Amino acid sequence: MDHGELGTFLLAFAAALFGGKLFGELAERIGQPAVLGELAVGVLLGPSLLGLVPLSAGILLVAEIGVMLLLFEVGLETDLEELLRVGAPAMVVAVVGMALPFLGGYLVTSAAGFPRLTAIFVGAALTATSIGITSRVLSEIGMLATREGQIILGAAAADDILGLVVLAVVSEIAATGSVSIGAALRSAGLSFAFLLGAIVIGMPLGRYLVRFVRDAKVRGVLVAVAVAFALLAALGAQKAGSAAIVGAFAAGLVLARTNRRRDIQNALRPTVDVFAPVFFVTIGAQVGVGYLNPFVAGNRSALFLALGLIVVGVLGKFAAGFSAWGGVRRSFIGAGMVPRGEVGLIFAKIGRESGALPDPVFVAVVITVFATTFLTPPLLAALSPARAPALPRP
Amino acid sequence: MDHGELGTFLLAFAAALFGGKLFGELAERIGQPAVLGELAVGVLLGPSLLGLVPLSAGILLVAEIGVMLLLFEVGLETDLEELLRVGAPAMVVAVVGMALPFLGGYLVTSAAGFPRLTAIFVGAALTATSIGITSRVLSEIGMLATREGQIILGAAAADDILGLVVLAVVSEIAATGSVSIGAALRSAGLSFAFLLGAIVIGMPLGRYLVRFVRDAKVRGVLVAVAVAFALLAALGAQKAGSAAIVGAFAAGLVLARTNRRRDIQNALRPTVDVFAPVFFVTIGAQVGVGYLNPFVAGNRSALFLALGLIVVGVLGKFAAGFSAWGGVRRSFIGAGMVPRGEVGLIFAKIGRESGALPDPVFVAVVITVFATTFLTPPLLAALSPARAPALPRP
Repeated sequence: MDHGELGTFLLAFAAALFGGKLFGELAERIGQPAVLGELAVGVLLGPSLLGLVPLSAGILLVAEIGVMLLLFEVGLETDLEELLRVGAPAMVVAVVGMALPFLGGYLVTSAAGFPRLTAIFVGAALTATSIGITSRVLSEIGMLATREGQIILGAAAADDILGLVVLAVVSEIAATGSVSIGAALRSAGLSFAFLLGAIVIGMPLGRYLVRFVRDAKVRGVLVAVAVAFALLAALGAQKAGSAAIVGAFAAGLVLARTNRRRDIQNALRPTVDVFAPVFFVTIGAQVGVGYLNPFVAGNRSALFLALGLIVVGVLGKFAAGFSAWGGVRRSFIGAGMVPRGEVGLIFAKIGRESGALPDPVFVAVVITVFATTFLTPPLLAALSPARAPALPRP
Repeated sequence: MDHGELGTFLLAFAAALFGGKLFGELAERIGQPAVLGELAVGVLLGPSLLGLVPLSAGILLVAEIGVMLLLFEVGLETDLEELLRVGAPAMVVAVVGMALPFLGGYLVTSAAGFPRLTAIFVGAALTATSIGITSRVLSEIGMLATREGQIILGAAAADDILGLVVLAVVSEIAATGSVSIGAALRSAGLSFAFLLGAIVIGMPLGRYLVRFVRDAKVRGVLVAVAVAFALLAALGAQKAGSAAIVGAFAAGLVLARTNRRRDIQNALRPTVDVFAPVFFVTIGAQVGVGYLNPFVAGNRSALFLALGLIVVGVLGKFAAGFSAWGGVRRSFIGAGMVPRGEVGLIFAKIGRESGALPDPVFVAVVITVFATTFLTPPLLAALSPARAPALPRP
């Protein structure tokens, strides 16, 4: 990397961090999740406006590292046993909450005249609830430990796993250009087999690694070995025809079941804090603001599409809440399932890169992710059975 | 980044982390600093042997991020006030300990028939004691809080600052190709002015940033803003004609004087643990093992040069210990000054990239860094006034 390239990279990295945290803070101050601020500042800093964060190879590599570390962390936070305890209603909410938005997104996109592959990608991008956004909002309004909160968390965790399988399937379809049921089933099988294999092989391997480093004297061995484990799992997932981030997520699931889970999480947190915002900022930076101008005739179809996607995206998840049972406030559960986020944006990015999502559809999906994320905190606060006011965290 | 490139990058990153920590642990088990293991495994994994860690743009960018974070951390650990308390003997040891190895390295390299610029670079590469290695060894043998330990630490901290100024001067000389006294003085002046300016402007700015983020609710804002601050300082240093790492170091010095120093250090530590090893592994990976074969006639001059550099590198620092006073064991202080490390390797890297160090001289310098680092722990243990046995850390 030469002198000028390094300078551009340093400026972009610093701008993404400063801007991401500043706008993240502003977002939280107005009751929104921080990720929304990171996306918004990305639009501002990106090539279509200020140009401080170019989509260069260096900054995109840092973004890639950031999203892998983030998915590794999400895996570490996902507790399979907890999910099983929450039981049947969470699973039903998760599955219904994936099926309805997928169907809605598929139908709206098809109706707008886009090809089948594009419609599948859009439907898939609307499936996964953001466990990060949801759990943060639940904690802020003091609803994390309630039965409703547990069902939402369980369903969102299931969504995270199922969503990544859907991602792998859709990526495979995009790569081969085929939408045959056979390929989809094979893709799903391969993804499940990889996840299953990674977990079955990974469990003893993870415990062995943790035991192996237990008496190590060298500094930082646990976090470095854990990250190396995640990188190798990402490589394995990629070689298995799945997305690299699925591997990082599986590595997190595996290491979550070791006795050093908390230590790995604590060590990983600041690293994710430094690298993950770059991912969201670069996602925002990919939005061409030109598309948002409704006075340009060509944009109207994209904006109409976004409007349609927001309606089916919100209503599909909201309706899923009503499939829960057991004396719970079902509208609250539905509201908790609404936010998309990380995974939806990853779908958008992969769809754009594979060519499955033309620019206006990509923008419509990103706008939908923005909108669902934006709507969640006021929705949850309004529908909360506790009606606890949002308090500043200690 | 396409599919294949990402795969190669993931493998290289994982191999550097696993290998670095494994060999780092092995190095510590035989009483050596972990950095030695990281260098050694780099030679093994690099293109001249296994080829698992290629010197690709992606892995070199991660190495660059790693060394910037490391120097930021070293800056955070450097306490200007503590250095002033240790006082006069530490400064004398630091200055003598830079002058003698510089002179020795310059003379040996000139005598071997290399041009003046090369001789200056080699001399400069031998100047800086590794504060990381030295402090770790002192802590392991229980000598950190003694008067000898304080003088070594103070001198090593002064070395770190002076060494980076020397680095900036030498980099400037290498860039302009000139060794005129005027250019050197201007370079030194610019470096000092940048350091001074960065610290004078940085102090209130750093305190302002820390105050600014004090009430922030967004996750990880302190570490992200601190890293962004270091990246901007690195960019500033680069624009001032100095090395980017000098800026990262200055950012550390500045933030070390805020009331959040400890929090920043704690958050930064695991990130450094994940990225810094990649730097040392890629340094090792740049060693062409072919040069180490003494049966190839062309290698002998490089190996003889390494031998000469080791002699002047060890004796120069060792002799500097005898310039201390105040009822201390001066041979122990001399031994504590011997290890080169991070900074010496950065000199080697910049010298190689600028063309000032031809391959054999680069290898000789890296071998010298290896050797001085390797010799320190047994030397310190043998000369310790306490003669405390090396104990495993709790």
